[in-house]
Amino acid sequence: MSPSTVPLGYYVWKRIAGLGIEHVFGVPGDFNLTLLDQIYDVPELTWLGTCNELNGAYAADGYARIKGTPAALLTTYGVGELSAMNGVAGAMAEHTGMIHLVGMTSRSIQKNKLLIHHTMYPQMDHAIYIGMSEPVRKTHCFLTDDATMASEIDRVITEGVKSRLPVFIYIPTDVVDVQLDAGRLETPLDTAIKNASASVEQEIVRSTVELIKRASNPVIVADVLTIRHGGRELTRALVDLTQFQTFSTPLSKGIVDETLSQYGGLYNGITSFDGVSDAVHGSDLVLNLGPLLSDSNTGGFTRDIKDEHLVYLGHDICSVGGKKYDGVHFLPVLKQLVEELKKDPSKYGLPRPQKTPQLKPPVLSTLTTGKIEQAYTWQRLGKFLQPNDIVLAESGTAQFGMPDATFPPNTSYITQIFWSSIGFTVGACLGALVAAKEIKSPGRVILIVGEGSLQMTVQEIGSYIRFGFKPVIFVINNNGYSIERAINGPEQKYNDVSMLWDHQKMLEFFGARPETGVKSRSFRCETVEEMEKVLGNEEFERADCIQLCEIVMDQFDYPWRLKRQLDIKNAKLAAEASVKK
Amino acid sequence: MSPSTVPLGYYVWKRIAGLGIEHVFGVPGDFNLTLLDQIYDVPELTWLGTCNELNGAYAADGYARIKGTPAALLTTYGVGELSAMNGVAGAMAEHTGMIHLVGMTSRSIQKNKLLIHHTMYPQMDHAIYIGMSEPVRKTHCFLTDDATMASEIDRVITEGVKSRLPVFIYIPTDVVDVQLDAGRLETPLDTAIKNASASVEQEIVRSTVELIKRASNPVIVADVLTIRHGGRELTRALVDLTQFQTFSTPLSKGIVDETLSQYGGLYNGITSFDGVSDAVHGSDLVLNLGPLLSDSNTGGFTRDIKDEHLVYLGHDICSVGGKKYDGVHFLPVLKQLVEELKKDPSKYGLPRPQKTPQLKPPVLSTLTTGKIEQAYTWQRLGKFLQPNDIVLAESGTAQFGMPDATFPPNTSYITQIFWSSIGFTVGACLGALVAAKEIKSPGRVILIVGEGSLQMTVQEIGSYIRFGFKPVIFVINNNGYSIERAINGPEQKYNDVSMLWDHQKMLEFFGARPETGVKSRSFRCETVEEMEKVLGNEEFERADCIQLCEIVMDQFDYPWRLKRQLDIKNAKLAAEASVKK
Repeated sequence: MSPSTVPLGYYVWKRIAGLGIEHVFGVPGDFNLTLLDQIYDVPELTWLGTCNELNGAYAADGYARIKGTPAALLTTYGVGELSAMNGVAGAMAEHTGMIHLVGMTSRSIQKNKLLIHHTMYPQMDHAIYIGMSEPVRKTHCFLTDDATMASEIDRVITEGVKSRLPVFIYIPTDVVDVQLDAGRLETPLDTAIKNASASVEQEIVRSTVELIKRASNPVIVADVLTIRHGGRELTRALVDLTQFQTFSTPLSKGIVDETLSQYGGLYNGITSFDGVSDAVHGSDLVLNLGPLLSDSNTGGFTRDIKDEHLVYLGHDICSVGGKKYDGVHFLPVLKQLVEELKKDPSKYGLPRPQKTPQLKPPVLSTLTTGKIEQAYTWQRLGKFLQPNDIVLAESGTAQFGMPDATFPPNTSYITQIFWSSIGFTVGACLGALVAAKEIKSPGRVILIVGEGSLQMTVQEIGSYIRFGFKPVIFVINNNGYSIERAINGPEQKYNDVSMLWDHQKMLEFFGARPETGVKSRSFRCETVEEMEKVLGNEEFERADCIQLCEIVMDQFDYPWRLKRQLDIKNAKLAAEASVKK
Repeated sequence: MSPSTVPLGYYVWKRIAGLGIEHVFGVPGDFNLTLLDQIYDVPELTWLGTCNELNGAYAADGYARIKGTPAALLTTYGVGELSAMNGVAGAMAEHTGMIHLVGMTSRSIQKNKLLIHHTMYPQMDHAIYIGMSEPVRKTHCFLTDDATMASEIDRVITEGVKSRLPVFIYIPTDVVDVQLDAGRLETPLDTAIKNASASVEQEIVRSTVELIKRASNPVIVADVLTIRHGGRELTRALVDLTQFQTFSTPLSKGIVDETLSQYGGLYNGITSFDGVSDAVHGSDLVLNLGPLLSDSNTGGFTRDIKDEHLVYLGHDICSVGGKKYDGVHFLPVLKQLVEELKKDPSKYGLPRPQKTPQLKPPVLSTLTTGKIEQAYTWQRLGKFLQPNDIVLAESGTAQFGMPDATFPPNTSYITQIFWSSIGFTVGACLGALVAAKEIKSPGRVILIVGEGSLQMTVQEIGSYIRFGFKPVIFVINNNGYSIERAINGPEQKYNDVSMLWDHQKMLEFFGARPETGVKSRSFRCETVEEMEKVLGNEEFERADCIQLCEIVMDQFDYPWRLKRQLDIKNAKLAAEASVKK
């Protein structure tokens, strides 16, 4: 017989495990230790302590992106939750679900407004931080009333899964042992996305298939929120069924197999390879899935798709040829669309392969010797990739360079070009490694990070080693913040970082040494020949231990996409200035 | 002739320089680069980039504690300001002034709510983060109106200096070049603390000197807000004039010369050495300067001073023998008190050395061989100190151990036992090093940090090396978060951290190597003999290069003060629980 009640800590951990989550990230603190004690009663879950809370949030974000469920993050109130804030905000901006549990002082201590550590004058309100996080979450619960705790936990977790946005659960120490009805746990949370109106969904699908039937040069632009909201497989099915020319974006790269003949490339407004923006802007039907229309995901706002040619399937709005459906989530719509087309593809003239010749990316560099250049690097790294690899590209030149590469099938790509917090990928890589292990990914995990960004969050390299992971780490060493040099003050000292770090000693310092039994390999490449030698090395490719490859480039060498986007921005600013005059 | 206007960027930097600030901490970002350009027009200021924003805030905090002025911190909106949040909150809690400049998108971009990087759905309000920081600052200005920019900058900086709390200045990129009246800069800001009523100040002083005249065993308890609000020298003058037995607290340690015969020790409620709490609690006049009555600064709320025996001189309230004066700042009061006593000390029976024998700290350990113990470590480190040293003790065992040490004259001590954010001191040490250089401190800068806390913020060790500093770093290596083990789950795995880091390779990794020309020394001590050898080494004592000394201790060995405070807490919890039954 099951016990009729369970302690709250066990309850919340069990609910989290029920989502398929297997690891919880974060940092222990005085006010979450007893909650952590109960994680050991839930064998489905494993605690994974990160070096600090910001990195913990980044790791949770990276985990969610690969695992496809929200991640769980645990911090302590005040110091911990505030340290994690920027990482949680990034998850809010880029829709990576995160359940952030915060351990707080007990209800009686809070009531007495004790001047206990992590509090602040003048109000001595221990819950003051709850208000601070409001803009970076979908919803929260502050567990103070025994009667509603179970339902509040369920509500908040459910909203977190559905929205793929951060949610917070604030847990005073004394409520960890409050007894909740165990019977509730027998019913899994209903986290399925449902729109309010089935007839609206049907209308969107009906008008979309009509447009599909009539379109002469239809294309698919599959963007990142499709992935975040669980629509990647449906997207792939749609591409497969229709054979329409398909494009990814800087944020969604890898969403479809880039080796397919219908893959047209990465669409980023006019900051795209030749032919790409013409194909999209000239199409009479753009099926745009899960758009996130930020500056660097639209080539500096140079996306130019007319409403009458657009089927926009977003997470909070859909539109068909200019007709808007507010509050409709694309996922059920996309599901029905695929089902409808699948029933009888020929009815809609499907499959309908593109008529124009396949768009292929230009070869940007034919360098075989000498100094390593941006133009050479990214397509070369693309060739290094293998099917099923997980690739992380850090904010900066990596993020603007990696779109040049062609990915092998089933590459997962993590980049944060909307929120753009430097240092993100070093933490996110830990989460990706954990998730890759959980899903038994046969691929490698490959981190590409600039040396300035690496300095932000470097300690988590130690966590890779601590937990036995074997990523391949490429460090772009180009003497400072090159992306900032491109933006302003190329020679200003504020764009410098320490150039004294010896990356060749990094893995050793963090734990890969003969006496620890942790194997590693480190390389430094200043020339194309050196780079070819490393990348072509079978042992390196196999990645059977943690590896680092430092790539030295010139500080004033910028990826072409970065330069073009800045040219667009500067031209706009100049035009605005001349209007003012 | 001076120009009649100056650009806003120059204006704000000039105002900051006018406070005596010589270095500005932070991280560059797209939206603060043009503001940074103008720092080079103010030769009094030097930009000092940290590895990340949290560390930048910690460094600013450490700087302010040593320099005695607020510090200046620069971040970029969203990612940067949120990353710094916990560091700023610590400055709020512990009253270390901080002027936080945040570079934002231009006013026109904000007005158009562009989906630019670092923004968030759904509102696209680029200023949404301004509200998030509200609880961790005294005041702020958001520079949008040309007409009030200069006065707003002046107001906010002035309030920042007076309150010794964080203030924020939000600067859209386009306002950096707004022209402001240069003439304003000819008048320095008036940052002097003034109370509303001179007669109230006089009444406090009058009644205090009356109590002093009559007291039979008066004592001084000099707490930390005296230091933060610029009252340390006045405190020393008061001690010198009165010769009353004087006590520091865990947060104010070092406020008076501990080698003076009237120094009674560190008062921390009943978590003090024998005789200390009796002396304070038994006194008929406690002159309590700048109190901060948090849990760990009062021995777990075991301070027991009766109102009728208390003169409480706080930053926002004073009281004399139970009579309260709300809103009165102690600084002008303390100044007048010292002046009054100085006029004719004999009138008040001063100096009046204590009658009881001098309180001396017990010798906690006589270990000369074998494993290093907590009881041995802290008093031994105290003996290693020299006059004018600056010592930082990290949250954890260092913070609870260091009160056992006796400091030589003019030791400056940085610890954060109220806000208690682990990793703080590693960043704060950078700021302390910078401030020490500015004030031409003849002492050494000594960081004492546990290996778990070090992992939080380790990259800033690289900044020490980058900027040529030579601190002595003691790493307490005791296999995880020992303070948390003492609190809960001593053997739980969540209190573990990576034990694979090789601290002996740390300085080398971050830049101290033969080829860089940066000299260093690293030691590892597992026994008392090894520790004695290192600490007794003249070269090590001289500290003419960056040095590291790793001290290995048992993970279950806790400082006695930590144990006693936890015993007090647990006894209270047990009492509460039995009342409930």
